[in-house]
Amino acid sequence: MKVGELVERSGVPLPTIKYYLREGILPPGTPTGRNQADYGPEHLRRVRLIRALVDVGGLGITAVKEVLRSIDDPHQFGHEVRGTAHYLLTRPTRADRSSPEWRQAREDVLDLIRRRGWQVYPDRPEVDQVADALHAIRSLGQDDLTTLLDTYAETVEKLAEEEVGLVMRRPDRAGTVEAVITGTVLGEAILVALRRIAQEHFSAQYSR
Amino acid sequence: MKVGELVERSGVPLPTIKYYLREGILPPGTPTGRNQADYGPEHLRRVRLIRALVDVGGLGITAVKEVLRSIDDPHQFGHEVRGTAHYLLTRPTRADRSSPEWRQAREDVLDLIRRRGWQVYPDRPEVDQVADALHAIRSLGQDDLTTLLDTYAETVEKLAEEEVGLVMRRPDRAGTVEAVITGTVLGEAILVALRRIAQEHFSAQYSR
Repeated sequence: MKVGELVERSGVPLPTIKYYLREGILPPGTPTGRNQADYGPEHLRRVRLIRALVDVGGLGITAVKEVLRSIDDPHQFGHEVRGTAHYLLTRPTRADRSSPEWRQAREDVLDLIRRRGWQVYPDRPEVDQVADALHAIRSLGQDDLTTLLDTYAETVEKLAEEEVGLVMRRPDRAGTVEAVITGTVLGEAILVALRRIAQEHFSAQYSR
Repeated sequence: MKVGELVERSGVPLPTIKYYLREGILPPGTPTGRNQADYGPEHLRRVRLIRALVDVGGLGITAVKEVLRSIDDPHQFGHEVRGTAHYLLTRPTRADRSSPEWRQAREDVLDLIRRRGWQVYPDRPEVDQVADALHAIRSLGQDDLTTLLDTYAETVEKLAEEEVGLVMRRPDRAGTVEAVITGTVLGEAILVALRRIAQEHFSAQYSR
């Protein structure tokens, strides 16, 4: 297809497509003449993936670039691509991590991970993030909320097993890695938004 | 306590405390002399809450201001404060919502909400967010991932019931509204990070 059709079918304006080409996140089409190129279904798919990551997932172009490099690397399989995606999605927090109370919170998170039998590297950034939140809850004296920690862990364990099983069952590498990215970014958006909707439902029952 | 002690105990530097005072998100202390004021435990608590929202929750100062206004308004109870918090946490997406496919995705989300018996306003921003993600997944041809939608809904329903029940059981209005904010913002941070940790665990098993 010509670039005009790519614009039409993806709904992404021409200047944006040109920007993706310049940034190298969209591979060039096959040249068909001076200033003309032919694009295939893989280009349309790539444009849609970029839009999903940027518009729905909230990723910046630099993060998108990294994710796509990981997808395009034939030596990276589902698990490695997931690692890259998780790393890129980790918003740096500015929480103070120097206090003994914070270190205790981190120990408690590692303890939770051990209790569940999850085999993960203890230096994952997500461990620190959970510690940040746990420490903040405690510093606010909201200790009753920390009783939810085990509920959260149990909940995500069931969910993650199903999610990971679904994408890993894909027959081809390309399909798996794309599903890992889509599932991580878009699944998270769905989970967070649905949780709020469900909270509204239950919360409204208390206001009657 | 003097402002120096507030700095010491909260770990928040003096210029930041002064900024909070200027912005009106931290109420002034009781004047005890020229350029001196006395601060109580409620000031320490407020500073910690602001840090939790900013550092861990990723909220901007404008959003924090709105959340605190909602907490400080004695006419707003748990449910209304939750509504404000959810509204402020909704990151605007730039997804194109004009296509018939997007409208279909939104209908499907509303259908899911009806099937679960959740009584919520259909014009909530979260409904559009779920539709954005669902539409993006479909446009990428990853339709098998949409089978997870019911799993997500079932998962968050159980979780939300427990979360809301816990904070609404608090005896006083101030305790409830603070727990609503803490639970919404920090609970979400925990949920998202723990999901990724659990995914890593299951994902690693497939890479062996």
